[in-house]
Amino acid sequence: MAGSYFRRGMTAPATFSLFVRQLPPSRGFLVLAGIDEVCRFLDRFGFDEDDIAYLEHTMGLSPDVLDALRGLRFTGDVWSAPEGSIVTAEEPLLELTAPLPEAQLVETALLNLMTFQTTIASKAVRCRLAAGDRDLVDFSFRRTQGLESGLLAARSAAIAGFNSTSNVAAAAQYDLRATGTMAHSYIQVFPREVDAFRSFAADYPERTTFLVDTYDTADGVRSAIQVVRELRQHGPVAIRLDSGDLGAQARMSRKLLDDAGLTEVRILASGGLDEMEIERLLADEAPIDAFGVGTKMGVSADAPYLDTVYKLVAYDGRPVMKLSTGKRTLPGPKQVFRRADGDLTGDVLGLREEPAPGGYRPLLGCVMRNGARIAPVSPGDAVRAARARCAAGLAHVPRDSRRLVEPEPLVASLSAPLSALAAEVAQGLGVPAS
Amino acid sequence: MAGSYFRRGMTAPATFSLFVRQLPPSRGFLVLAGIDEVCRFLDRFGFDEDDIAYLEHTMGLSPDVLDALRGLRFTGDVWSAPEGSIVTAEEPLLELTAPLPEAQLVETALLNLMTFQTTIASKAVRCRLAAGDRDLVDFSFRRTQGLESGLLAARSAAIAGFNSTSNVAAAAQYDLRATGTMAHSYIQVFPREVDAFRSFAADYPERTTFLVDTYDTADGVRSAIQVVRELRQHGPVAIRLDSGDLGAQARMSRKLLDDAGLTEVRILASGGLDEMEIERLLADEAPIDAFGVGTKMGVSADAPYLDTVYKLVAYDGRPVMKLSTGKRTLPGPKQVFRRADGDLTGDVLGLREEPAPGGYRPLLGCVMRNGARIAPVSPGDAVRAARARCAAGLAHVPRDSRRLVEPEPLVASLSAPLSALAAEVAQGLGVPAS
Repeated sequence: MAGSYFRRGMTAPATFSLFVRQLPPSRGFLVLAGIDEVCRFLDRFGFDEDDIAYLEHTMGLSPDVLDALRGLRFTGDVWSAPEGSIVTAEEPLLELTAPLPEAQLVETALLNLMTFQTTIASKAVRCRLAAGDRDLVDFSFRRTQGLESGLLAARSAAIAGFNSTSNVAAAAQYDLRATGTMAHSYIQVFPREVDAFRSFAADYPERTTFLVDTYDTADGVRSAIQVVRELRQHGPVAIRLDSGDLGAQARMSRKLLDDAGLTEVRILASGGLDEMEIERLLADEAPIDAFGVGTKMGVSADAPYLDTVYKLVAYDGRPVMKLSTGKRTLPGPKQVFRRADGDLTGDVLGLREEPAPGGYRPLLGCVMRNGARIAPVSPGDAVRAARARCAAGLAHVPRDSRRLVEPEPLVASLSAPLSALAAEVAQGLGVPAS
Repeated sequence: MAGSYFRRGMTAPATFSLFVRQLPPSRGFLVLAGIDEVCRFLDRFGFDEDDIAYLEHTMGLSPDVLDALRGLRFTGDVWSAPEGSIVTAEEPLLELTAPLPEAQLVETALLNLMTFQTTIASKAVRCRLAAGDRDLVDFSFRRTQGLESGLLAARSAAIAGFNSTSNVAAAAQYDLRATGTMAHSYIQVFPREVDAFRSFAADYPERTTFLVDTYDTADGVRSAIQVVRELRQHGPVAIRLDSGDLGAQARMSRKLLDDAGLTEVRILASGGLDEMEIERLLADEAPIDAFGVGTKMGVSADAPYLDTVYKLVAYDGRPVMKLSTGKRTLPGPKQVFRRADGDLTGDVLGLREEPAPGGYRPLLGCVMRNGARIAPVSPGDAVRAARARCAAGLAHVPRDSRRLVEPEPLVASLSAPLSALAAEVAQGLGVPAS
């Protein structure tokens, strides 16, 4: 397609809108993540000599097209809502305006990066809603869909309110808190469980988490108690339960610890957890202080993708739309107007050039102009800002949209100018607008 | 953990077994993928100066441990079934023997790489089973969980029998067939649909696929017919349907094409497809020649992860096992014995040192020895061999395990020596073995 555009000189500015057509049934809202990675991708977008050689020799692209691709850089503008924003269906996650071939060539990468990270943040925030003020630890790296995905999943989880990650690489890259624990294999390589505990506590006295279920859980807790007493540990100590009936095990463990006077030793639960199980355990008053949440969060197991699309809304100054059955798009560059008091129930989807209605503020801002990032920040600062924004936004999500089962989706209404434009463009295409 | 091991000189060889505890309910078998990427990872495993600095300054690791990590390389052995093999629960996907800290440090990456690629190949093969001899095109890149995942998903799909991919980067990396099509935006930037078709066909006469549903599908098919006639195209031409009732649209389109004498123009269907929908369309005799399958395959939407584990089975020559409730492991390095005639219903899980029973062959072979790959091949050759192996294996999957809904899982039985060892080790730990 890009080759065809170059050959015909079709390089006028095109605006594409990236949005979610419809929320999964189990999502009442989304937490936007991915913009930072999108900007990094666009910053380094281009074709190297290997790419050009492949396109020439294997794909058979013609010399004029290859010349156009050689040295191509992203020169466009990107508008988006900031990371950590609460958003919903039809609201643009980002809009991009660039010469048509550039805008087309980056489509797949942009859809990929925004879809995945928003999917994970929107799953992880459900764990945060279920866990209340308990700690959440990202344990997902081992089963995310790829290694890069493990880094991005840890980042998305942090934005959604996870407190730390077991993924040291992600912690290093995004300045997250890394928290470790031991594996069952650690216990197994020592002659006795208590020897393993003693070694680990001696090596890491400031952050010891004893995995107590390798053989018999009650015995494991007793061994942990013995070691804590021997070493008179003062740092944060925890035990970790990773199998069986976590509620019953937690109650039994809490009693053993309390009877030993170790009321400050915390209980971490893990093992196939998701937001539904966390909610169930806490409704049942399980004395669990922290949850290690892995695979089901890291792949968003119940809804592993979003129905994201990247649709042309304007070309060369002309608003366009598509009429395919069930896949209609709205024309023109857009803006989301959100109530200035943070209320999320009154969002208005309008045209970018419209003035904000009274008491409303525009949600989308320009993050890249002429191919250059506006106000880039460090990876750590980006996560911290997004995390604060998500926490602030959550307070405004209505109860019916927060609940885990069959939430009411947030809905944006259309502004009068946008509705009028859609009717006008559809009429030009010979069909009714609604 | 690795720090603790280094400090105590616990660097004796450890064997870990990577396997799936239980198949997802919708899977009767798995297609193994990921070994090639695992070997590449182990080849380049190590810590660079940035890693060491982070571990020192932020994680606070001690100088003796940092010294041990600096310059560390993978020096162990890896055994595995070849990529493209049909495997099932409890059968090792790979086994690794290495000095304990090395074996521990690579755990997360190995689980990640094997889980993801096997998950996708095992999903994609269901599309192959549903599609029979129709063409399958990978359309997943836009919504896979990360960019790297998109490359690996294309590779896994190719192993499972997909014919081509829309992912040019993956095609270049793994020597796959790249097939392109146009997007709705391509149609929209031209004044009329027929102008877009004419331009694309002129630029790519050898591989034109007309997307006909941007406005009105029947009109789109008529425009495609007009352009094919004008240009007297001889290469493989297709139309693509991407919305609405694909079966009805395909029948309507086929009739228009046939009435125009264009019986050789093929019909490609896409849009939210998965194996269930492909099966339904073909059961309904929809005249569809090729299916573009995207997101639901690329994230394995109905089962986005496998219950993979990486468990210590031997340390320093001593077989070990774990007894956690519902998570028991079997001790010792293992082998899978498979019937030499390819029959998949008689697999025996045994100890690596056991002789193969009569009429059986060992499935696992050594792929890395002392940290070096045995017989590495090019990325393209690796995919082609795995793809042929998968196709050959599929012919041996019994009907009840092939069906898409509630398949009967393949099951491996335990050899007498393995059962005896498990009983012996469990007894040493003071509990009954079963």
